[in-house]
Amino acid sequence: MSQTLSPLPALSPALADSPFLRACRREPNDVTPVWLMRQAGRYMQEYRDIRAKVSFLELCKSPELATEVTVYAQERLGVDAAILFADILLILEPIGFNLEFAKGEGPVIHNPVRESQDVDRVRAFDDKSTLGYVFDAVSSIRRALKPNIPLIGFAGAPFTLACYAIEGGGSRHYEKAKAFMYRDPGAWDVLMSRLVDATIVYLNAQAEAGAQCLQLFDSWVGTLGPDDYRQFVQPHMKRLIAGLHKGVPCIHFGTDTSTLLELQRDAGGDVIGLDWRVDFAQSWDRLGHDVAVQGNLDPVVLFAPEAEIRARARKVLDQAAGRPGHIFNLGHGILPQTPVDHVLALVDEVHSYRPAAR
Amino acid sequence: MSQTLSPLPALSPALADSPFLRACRREPNDVTPVWLMRQAGRYMQEYRDIRAKVSFLELCKSPELATEVTVYAQERLGVDAAILFADILLILEPIGFNLEFAKGEGPVIHNPVRESQDVDRVRAFDDKSTLGYVFDAVSSIRRALKPNIPLIGFAGAPFTLACYAIEGGGSRHYEKAKAFMYRDPGAWDVLMSRLVDATIVYLNAQAEAGAQCLQLFDSWVGTLGPDDYRQFVQPHMKRLIAGLHKGVPCIHFGTDTSTLLELQRDAGGDVIGLDWRVDFAQSWDRLGHDVAVQGNLDPVVLFAPEAEIRARARKVLDQAAGRPGHIFNLGHGILPQTPVDHVLALVDEVHSYRPAAR
Repeated sequence: MSQTLSPLPALSPALADSPFLRACRREPNDVTPVWLMRQAGRYMQEYRDIRAKVSFLELCKSPELATEVTVYAQERLGVDAAILFADILLILEPIGFNLEFAKGEGPVIHNPVRESQDVDRVRAFDDKSTLGYVFDAVSSIRRALKPNIPLIGFAGAPFTLACYAIEGGGSRHYEKAKAFMYRDPGAWDVLMSRLVDATIVYLNAQAEAGAQCLQLFDSWVGTLGPDDYRQFVQPHMKRLIAGLHKGVPCIHFGTDTSTLLELQRDAGGDVIGLDWRVDFAQSWDRLGHDVAVQGNLDPVVLFAPEAEIRARARKVLDQAAGRPGHIFNLGHGILPQTPVDHVLALVDEVHSYRPAAR
Repeated sequence: MSQTLSPLPALSPALADSPFLRACRREPNDVTPVWLMRQAGRYMQEYRDIRAKVSFLELCKSPELATEVTVYAQERLGVDAAILFADILLILEPIGFNLEFAKGEGPVIHNPVRESQDVDRVRAFDDKSTLGYVFDAVSSIRRALKPNIPLIGFAGAPFTLACYAIEGGGSRHYEKAKAFMYRDPGAWDVLMSRLVDATIVYLNAQAEAGAQCLQLFDSWVGTLGPDDYRQFVQPHMKRLIAGLHKGVPCIHFGTDTSTLLELQRDAGGDVIGLDWRVDFAQSWDRLGHDVAVQGNLDPVVLFAPEAEIRARARKVLDQAAGRPGHIFNLGHGILPQTPVDHVLALVDEVHSYRPAAR
């Protein structure tokens, strides 16, 4: 699929020179920029107050409320970037999936792909207005954020989306998805290709609406070994990332990817996500320092006492050794029971600590 | 804790020369030995028939039924070893935990360790008769198995047991367990030490009752990064493994351990478990060939068509390249929906394929 890209909004000097975007470009910073996956989420009372009134999908589909929670979280925490409030599964609706967020049960897809021929049902994302609420939220958040705070748009990576589409919801072992992949690699490639096509349009439209950076969440890809990743995922990720606006940095994120890091880097992305299972310094060495990295504190560390949180944050920063191109983050999203005070302490420590260069 | 070891039963020549025990000792074999974690389990109709009559705990506590399912699975599959039918949590009962297997919900511990002082409640395993049913099952299975088929005893590794003891059951993020560990490393060490003491007694008694090999299941340890493993787990694993009968090979198993393999090897074990996320050949190179390895097929591959299962089994065998010291296994337990025919095809392929030496 070829696509004519629409123009991007001009990048203001205040945004271009923000610590976050400087880190994406591996330019030196006085302070390591930090943001946290799921920073607008259930651990915050203000978010729970809003969710007491509307469902999760209603919140996603209200640009006004999505703006409120996104901007509130960025300002409350004082982090260096905001991330669009949305869900990786929203893109599945316009391409033919019947999506529901059942209370307390997580997402359910009522018409999953199970047989090879089911792939024919997956439609093109050819009417962007079906996700108009996402692009409206992006524009609205961009207007509401301080002019020097970048906004991150995002999408699920095709492997993770394909797992949801085949499993019909969350999964522990992904046996339906992997069995599909092993049984009919041709149908798998068609499914992945359609997800890639849709995601390229979706992410570029987010950038055109006002996002300064795009993150791909391949949250589940760590269930694959390197050979499977190379065969079933990497070509699709390459095509996806190559199809994105060049001027917008791309964060390529996964968890449990210690055996996949080089393959992910080769697939593309300006910034590679690291989780807490890997040694930060060793992993950046493996990736090479011509790519930026994001991570890698264990979200569970935020349940430890404040002194321990600060010590562990310093350890990550020491491993980065002040090298340009580090965005501090957790290795995965903030957990719902996390104390807000602990998150504030973490952000304070990242902003105030100065690691010695190695 | 010092412990006087009771004598082991004499090892018959038929057992000593079995392909499985030869592989544990890294001696050459004509055929790669294979067994499968959870080989006696829910994927088998005969097992489900028995479970229709008794609960999971009743099955564990009946030496007669445990013998029946253990021996049946070994003979039905034609695998090279049997593994005791039991559960890693059984040891928690005599040391003070109130354990229940709630129908369809997995294990529940009604009195978990939550505060530091709760550790004082964890008792010594000083009355082996409380787990007499396990040792009776071992003796009974040993008598019922063919004389050339080794029997594997097992226990949960202390980290995985501690997670259960603190979380009170299964967990996704282990936030209670890790927060405990970060908050009070002293209390953590006491808890781990008590679990190690109990496990040494428990495993040695299994060997004395007739098990020819002992596997430690550290199924959840892959949630830790290398620094945490080194600090919070490795010293305990070292002491545990050093406390086991010398003549009985120990399999040190974990999942999601790609960043921990060298640390696990240094903690001990004659055989190190590999899961499917790692490249088999590279990982054995990392470990060094003075240790045996077990693995590493993805259990989900058993849902693929038979030809794909056989091809993927050959790939693992090719990576082992006929080098002495490989025990073929899955990277984790067989999943409940696995077709039995597919398991038979896998065992057949491992037994009939001859990889070219590298």
